[in-house]
Amino acid sequence: MNDRKILAGRDPLVFAGSPLDRGDQLRRDEAGMAALLGGDDGWWLGLIEGDPVLQDQGGLFWFRRSEIASLADMTTGLFLGHYKGSPCFAATITTADQLPLDAEITPARQAAMALGHDEAAIYAQAKALLAWHARHGFCAACGGATTAKSGGGRRQCDACGSEHFPRVDPVVIMLAVDGERCLLGRQASWPEGIWSALAGFVEPAETLEEACARELEEEAGIKVDIAGVRYVMGQPWPFASSLMIGLVAPVTDANVTIDPHELEQARWFSRDEVRTMLAGTHADAAMPPSIAIARRLAELWADGDI
Amino acid sequence: MNDRKILAGRDPLVFAGSPLDRGDQLRRDEAGMAALLGGDDGWWLGLIEGDPVLQDQGGLFWFRRSEIASLADMTTGLFLGHYKGSPCFAATITTADQLPLDAEITPARQAAMALGHDEAAIYAQAKALLAWHARHGFCAACGGATTAKSGGGRRQCDACGSEHFPRVDPVVIMLAVDGERCLLGRQASWPEGIWSALAGFVEPAETLEEACARELEEEAGIKVDIAGVRYVMGQPWPFASSLMIGLVAPVTDANVTIDPHELEQARWFSRDEVRTMLAGTHADAAMPPSIAIARRLAELWADGDI
Repeated sequence: MNDRKILAGRDPLVFAGSPLDRGDQLRRDEAGMAALLGGDDGWWLGLIEGDPVLQDQGGLFWFRRSEIASLADMTTGLFLGHYKGSPCFAATITTADQLPLDAEITPARQAAMALGHDEAAIYAQAKALLAWHARHGFCAACGGATTAKSGGGRRQCDACGSEHFPRVDPVVIMLAVDGERCLLGRQASWPEGIWSALAGFVEPAETLEEACARELEEEAGIKVDIAGVRYVMGQPWPFASSLMIGLVAPVTDANVTIDPHELEQARWFSRDEVRTMLAGTHADAAMPPSIAIARRLAELWADGDI
Repeated sequence: MNDRKILAGRDPLVFAGSPLDRGDQLRRDEAGMAALLGGDDGWWLGLIEGDPVLQDQGGLFWFRRSEIASLADMTTGLFLGHYKGSPCFAATITTADQLPLDAEITPARQAAMALGHDEAAIYAQAKALLAWHARHGFCAACGGATTAKSGGGRRQCDACGSEHFPRVDPVVIMLAVDGERCLLGRQASWPEGIWSALAGFVEPAETLEEACARELEEEAGIKVDIAGVRYVMGQPWPFASSLMIGLVAPVTDANVTIDPHELEQARWFSRDEVRTMLAGTHADAAMPPSIAIARRLAELWADGDI
């Protein structure tokens, strides 16, 4: 358990493994950052309501500054980091109808499945950061206007000087396990037949293990052995700024009572049943697609690796 | 590794293990929450600039509503959860000079070492939440005033309706290990002779393991095997709203080059040297106190448990 050999022979999870050097030291030089953002070096991504622009041949559409400047609100421009020596940036496109003919706006989840690993991770960073900046033009402490600093690594209030840093919201997502069966649930808004691992945001002043136990009890009424909860792996999830933390949790009380506000259904699935769901041969139940850490947790459990 | 038997016989980390039922379902009833907060049931904590009020006999000073109402700004009042059937609340004290004679304002870290486990965890929740509310009176999206909802579980903008949720900032804190030695560093602001594990905030779109590798390379110039990074344990750390995530990281390049902006010094310590530091018998180096997860990581490593 937790020996990363469990990952051998499996694809890494999408959105993880960014190849960028985020340039922590570079960001301290505000004048240098402004020059970098205003210069002609490097490559730009343009996002439209969080969705990326892809080449019609596949892969992210990387713009030169001169190309994106007429399409995007450049005041949203961010430095993402260096990739193979070139600086990479992102901005929000405002005139999507003027995109090049060989560029395609692609829904985020569809892009996640289509992109190569490096580009999916770079896109995740762009999406999470642009969304955070778009929602933080004002200071939560005093209501004043804020300005991006450090190439987008923080914002500062023009009035009171408060600094604000991008959020990363830890989310526990857990496979509750009771011997040869695991608990899966579904929300009413999901496509018919899809079941997944339960999940929830970590709250202030609790550990990952405590959040796991609280969420399982709140949503499904089951109890787990907190001391037996184990970490498996994580995945950045830029909807909006989550860090999914995959856990496996041994159950001490398996009686399910769902909270209908959170779930439409939750029930125990046998290991064989999960295998048929993963194989796509179950009569009426299926798992989320391969981009989801929930599917990976189920695969690892079905194979006896966690 | 990661078998929680490693924790057997050791005290749990302070701030973890809250005994409160946070009342997720109760919080959905705004009228019920308002009645609970305005009622005479239950017990209140009062914090002063984040510090708790303790009884001079030890333990948190729990006020009745009628007692705290004259001392605190009750508009800051929050519902923490139920403890043994009683609702628990927290508010910010504004007239500290009118505290009861048997009440003592106690600095946060001193309180953390003095309080029992349950009360330390409850205090951590109160401290993290009151600080978040105090810094979020305005909407980051539009600058409008916000109002606490759900008993303090969220804030809502009076102008644009945006919802805002308390932050939990994941922080990786890691013992980089190279065979029989581990890396410790110190910041110039720390007391002389104190060395600790390196740490840093997780950034958008990276996993815990990636954040661990990035921080070690940024701060100390060393490289780790990301696939070998292992989770050990976590600790809520309400300064201001961190979740410390303890890791152990195997090193592939042990050449130390510090970033003087982050660290004053960093160097390798042998296992024997760490043992003497933990025992308090090292000539000129010491570890942080027992409330710090860094000390626990060092203890576990010194004992060969991680």
